[in-house]
Amino acid sequence: MIQTHRHVLDTSGQDDAHDITPVVARDIESAGLRDGLATVSVVGSTAGITTIEFEPGAVSDLNGVFEALAPRHGRYRHHLRWGDDNGSSHVRAALLGPSLTIPVAGGTLVLGTWQQIVLLEFDTQPRRREFVVQVMGE
Amino acid sequence: MIQTHRHVLDTSGQDDAHDITPVVARDIESAGLRDGLATVSVVGSTAGITTIEFEPGAVSDLNGVFEALAPRHGRYRHHLRWGDDNGSSHVRAALLGPSLTIPVAGGTLVLGTWQQIVLLEFDTQPRRREFVVQVMGE
Amino acid sequence: MIQTHRHVLDTSGQDDAHDITPVVARDIESAGLRDGLATVSVVGSTAGITTIEFEPGAVSDLNGVFEALAPRHGRYRHHLRWGDDNGSSHVRAALLGPSLTIPVAGGTLVLGTWQQIVLLEFDTQPRRREFVVQVMGE
Repeated sequence: MIQTHRHVLDTSGQDDAHDITPVVARDIESAGLRDGLATVSVVGSTAGITTIEFEPGAVSDLNGVFEALAPRHGRYRHHLRWGDDNGSSHVRAALLGPSLTIPVAGGTLVLGTWQQIVLLEFDTQPRRREFVVQVMGE
Repeated sequence: MIQTHRHVLDTSGQDDAHDITPVVARDIESAGLRDGLATVSVVGSTAGITTIEFEPGAVSDLNGVFEALAPRHGRYRHHLRWGDDNGSSHVRAALLGPSLTIPVAGGTLVLGTWQQIVLLEFDTQPRRREFVVQVMGE
Repeated sequence: MIQTHRHVLDTSGQDDAHDITPVVARDIESAGLRDGLATVSVVGSTAGITTIEFEPGAVSDLNGVFEALAPRHGRYRHHLRWGDDNGSSHVRAALLGPSLTIPVAGGTLVLGTWQQIVLLEFDTQPRRREFVVQVMGE
């Protein structure tokens, strides 16, 4: 069984993070998936998906490391091309990656209690984000 | 065919790394999987999965970069929340990601000779780690 | 339906990047895959796969951050083991990861317009790279 669910959410720009675990869990339940894979993928090259303990401190710590790695107001060759200001966004998104695949067993995502699936916005502007949850299995 | 295998291993805390390639290979063999996907996922938000040439030098080099990125004894907002001391662990785990999906072809993981699947412990304490190997295919 | 396609490309060494989206799209089309997963995995421990807006500026910005993280001419314990000079390559590859799984819906990869699948060469020498595209679904 394969089902692809498309979702949209609005972000406030760089450093915004959304816990999308409930969305993924709902898609698994509505599909009746017992065992298989849930793949979450964000559309676009300036956002990413990972897991984290979703509390403001840990999210802020992660964004702080991204700021040290690829500063919002740094110099980027990407800016020269398009007059964009989101070089930091592209670098952060490429480092983290756009997708995540998590096993489902007994109808439940294999995650820890303090481990949530998050969509991280890296773009410098608010965005309407599309992400896809694909469930595959039986 | 879908099979989910749960495994446990004991780690010594931050910087500990375990080559779990033999475990994954055994699960593929016991399932009789010829072609498909092997997904490895660690449960919890303070460990990660990737591939590396599993020799102490390369593992130490990788841990050294994580220490520069998110120092063990740095200041983290996460510490303020729980009185925890593992802010560095959460940041490292979120950056690396908790899971990895590798194709299987002809009954064999598609990996290089010097490329192993590793579980990296980022937590500051020894942990009993649970990870899951899910094989899907035919 | 499961198909595994093996590909080879020649790289010029560290900082070289290849847009392999057309290769993946062709494999999806030749398999007749409508809905499912496309998993791309590079063989070896000194290269990686991610998505990025594939233009020279953004790729250069990303390589610049990898150079800051794990400098080409830094000191690595891995060098002591083999007399190699590619400690930076191993660290970068382990951080980024060797594989990527992207959903396919309606015969099309779920990617943004400015989002390409790239193979990043991290090794210090030109390499003949093997990567695998596995499509699974219906």
